Amino acid sequence: MSDPSSRLSPFHALLGEGGVVTDADSLIRYTHDQRALMQGQTPGVLRPRSTEEVQAIVRLAVHLGFGLVPQGGNTGYVGGATPEPGRGQLVVSFERMNRIRSVDAAGFTLACDAGTILADAQAAAEAQGCLLPLSLGAEGSCRLGGNVGTNAGGLQVLRYGMTRDLVLGLEVVLPDGSLFSDMRTLRKNNIGYDLKQLFIGAEGTLGLVTGVVLKLWPAQTRRATAWLQLAANAPIPEIAALVRRETADLASTFELISASSLALVADMRGADLGLAAGPGGAVLLELSASSERIPLDDVLLGTLEALIEAGHVEDAVLAQSERQRREMWTIRETIPEAEKHAGGSVKLDIAVPTSAVSSFLERAGAVVAAEAPGTRLSFYGHVGDGNIHFNLMVPAGRDRLAFTREVEAGIAHAVYAVAVDLGGSFSAEYGIGRFKRDLLVRYGEPNRLALLSAIKRAIDPHGVMNAGAMI
Amino acid sequence: MSDPSSRLSPFHALLGEGGVVTDADSLIRYTHDQRALMQGQTPGVLRPRSTEEVQAIVRLAVHLGFGLVPQGGNTGYVGGATPEPGRGQLVVSFERMNRIRSVDAAGFTLACDAGTILADAQAAAEAQGCLLPLSLGAEGSCRLGGNVGTNAGGLQVLRYGMTRDLVLGLEVVLPDGSLFSDMRTLRKNNIGYDLKQLFIGAEGTLGLVTGVVLKLWPAQTRRATAWLQLAANAPIPEIAALVRRETADLASTFELISASSLALVADMRGADLGLAAGPGGAVLLELSASSERIPLDDVLLGTLEALIEAGHVEDAVLAQSERQRREMWTIRETIPEAEKHAGGSVKLDIAVPTSAVSSFLERAGAVVAAEAPGTRLSFYGHVGDGNIHFNLMVPAGRDRLAFTREVEAGIAHAVYAVAVDLGGSFSAEYGIGRFKRDLLVRYGEPNRLALLSAIKRAIDPHGVMNAGAMI
Repeated sequence: MSDPSSRLSPFHALLGEGGVVTDADSLIRYTHDQRALMQGQTPGVLRPRSTEEVQAIVRLAVHLGFGLVPQGGNTGYVGGATPEPGRGQLVVSFERMNRIRSVDAAGFTLACDAGTILADAQAAAEAQGCLLPLSLGAEGSCRLGGNVGTNAGGLQVLRYGMTRDLVLGLEVVLPDGSLFSDMRTLRKNNIGYDLKQLFIGAEGTLGLVTGVVLKLWPAQTRRATAWLQLAANAPIPEIAALVRRETADLASTFELISASSLALVADMRGADLGLAAGPGGAVLLELSASSERIPLDDVLLGTLEALIEAGHVEDAVLAQSERQRREMWTIRETIPEAEKHAGGSVKLDIAVPTSAVSSFLERAGAVVAAEAPGTRLSFYGHVGDGNIHFNLMVPAGRDRLAFTREVEAGIAHAVYAVAVDLGGSFSAEYGIGRFKRDLLVRYGEPNRLALLSAIKRAIDPHGVMNAGAMI
Repeated sequence: MSDPSSRLSPFHALLGEGGVVTDADSLIRYTHDQRALMQGQTPGVLRPRSTEEVQAIVRLAVHLGFGLVPQGGNTGYVGGATPEPGRGQLVVSFERMNRIRSVDAAGFTLACDAGTILADAQAAAEAQGCLLPLSLGAEGSCRLGGNVGTNAGGLQVLRYGMTRDLVLGLEVVLPDGSLFSDMRTLRKNNIGYDLKQLFIGAEGTLGLVTGVVLKLWPAQTRRATAWLQLAANAPIPEIAALVRRETADLASTFELISASSLALVADMRGADLGLAAGPGGAVLLELSASSERIPLDDVLLGTLEALIEAGHVEDAVLAQSERQRREMWTIRETIPEAEKHAGGSVKLDIAVPTSAVSSFLERAGAVVAAEAPGTRLSFYGHVGDGNIHFNLMVPAGRDRLAFTREVEAGIAHAVYAVAVDLGGSFSAEYGIGRFKRDLLVRYGEPNRLALLSAIKRAIDPHGVMNAGAMI
């Protein structure tokens, strides 16, 4: 193998100034995942500005024998965008492909480059009186290609679905450099296999997503938000079902916050939060509507009265101002940072059927108490969708990476076993990446894995695309 | 080749009494598509009662060299379930696999066999206080496996999406007889490629769907319905957008009915309908909600006032009773029958971006007037989703099949060209089947078709599954 830097000269020629990053200091932010659980390696980062440049990159990579790892905002939790040491993979960063291509306010669609930052796409929709409902903690830095590659979930799945449910069109550079372009803004189009579905959630292993068309909704001009203190043993599935019914599915957020997660936030702030959990934890509930004709405050109030009457909720606080609403949201959004501040956590991203959320919490809590007594938990999340971020805090004085490995080799499987027994899964929204490959094999049915490999071979026979991720 | 009936004896042994149909009279309802545009042929129809029997059928078929054509209610419009003359394909009918497996009312999911009639699944959901929103004209006889295979659309896509958007889980017998089972009721589950997406809309060409898990919603306990008379040149996209916004997306139906389609219904009934179209046609608009807390009548009234004020709507009738609501719906649902009664139609199932519906109608109408003067049109449909059933009536005295061929070879392409020019498609919800294979090739991009074939080869290398459909 010749000197890597000279092997990259065709890419320099192709991409021009700022198009290839090779100096060690600059590489760090591309080679380390955001939680610094993995230190990757790459001969260089390629920064194309157009779909045509991405096609040329792929053709060159095939010709020169480089593997490629696509990267958006590098905000993933499973190392899916981290180039593996020893593989000599080039990173393709989409940070210079961030153009909003079009917004159709009457048709409620938005088309943009894959490198568009989620918050920028949200703002472009909002400027036209529309809502792009994909919303997650990393929205200020994650990029839409990454959201598509990981089928991102987030805070409003309950009402609007996952990223897959929002995607109308995709543009993808295939492993031979050819282009699959299906950027039509159609809501209905039954013309053979819906091939774009393959690339959503594929973590860049089948091609490089360069463009996205998303569904929009009318901008939500009214909101009603409440903080619920749950009664002891409050049945979360029944509460969520009652909320859906009573609010006519205008609830866009139903987030559980455990007392322990709330305590972490208070610890970090060093101050009383002004909001407390009940014996069963707390729920952040938000309704939203695009029309003044819906009496949203009345709907919320009536729903809360029904919950209190049923004995599920002890007390509730209605946000009386945008400031108070922001306070409630900040608490929810600060939990990951508060976990980090307290020494870090091992994040288990559990999915169960919505109706099994309470059973899961009870059984998984008991498992951890029995097998790893004294371990502090922080659990919270999108329980209206059956998604629980069930995190084990790193004990004081323990090395974070060592504890992570210990949990992942042991107690994590006991927790996954509870989820699987309830018809659930070890990955709700984070994906597989490089950290959960073993889990995919361990919990994947053989027929499913065989089919997955057959698809990978059919589309990427030479393994150019993100080798080491997922499979 | 040996005598076909003796070649079927292993299937008789496998499926027992009533399991194999071979007599000519009984075969007719399986070998003719519902519009009798194609007369198919088959050595026999297989009627399994379980997933295991379907697996055994596939293994036997591979061994004996039979191709298979899956069939649900045989209500499709494109010949996708019709065995082709000369191919010796066996039909696999799912009519004996019609069990509701489970309904989870708190988790809002329903699991059932692929042969379940859509209306039966709707009823099972309703019995538990839930809504299965998939709704189409054929719901009393179509079966869910067929809905999945064709990614059926229908009357409530505007709010709830296509069949794809409703599917949480699938069970599929693969072309080698092995089982792909992903019947979990999870709303979030990111564990590698979402393989079930491949089988949705694949028209049975990749495997035989045997089980389905569907999302449910809270039962809609309130409805508000109106008949709108559109003003001349009323901008349909702007009206649909205003309706979405003003009703907070509680509109579940927004159906255009042209004056010409309405006239067909009146002709068939031989009576005044009591409801008229405006110069721009009529719209059937329905809002629905699961909660008494939403003042649905006020929301509808306010929305209609806004539409009249904007000059888009000349007049509107609010349904004052369930009887009046049913009358409005019956008119809409009777259009296909009225077309048949008037001598039949050639159905063009157009999709355009929602914002291009008015442009399409204007341009396509002009094209037909210029190239086939005197042709009577009947257009209607789910224009809130950009889907227009744009049908050309068979002229009095013309042979239906001959006229169909003439249109499909000529003027249809001029209409498709308008749709494609607006970023649209020649098939919104009917699919490809056997009638639109040529269109798929004519309008499909080469890279897309190559990928489609690669997937077919990877999963069904011996072409066992529904050969001749789609590709």
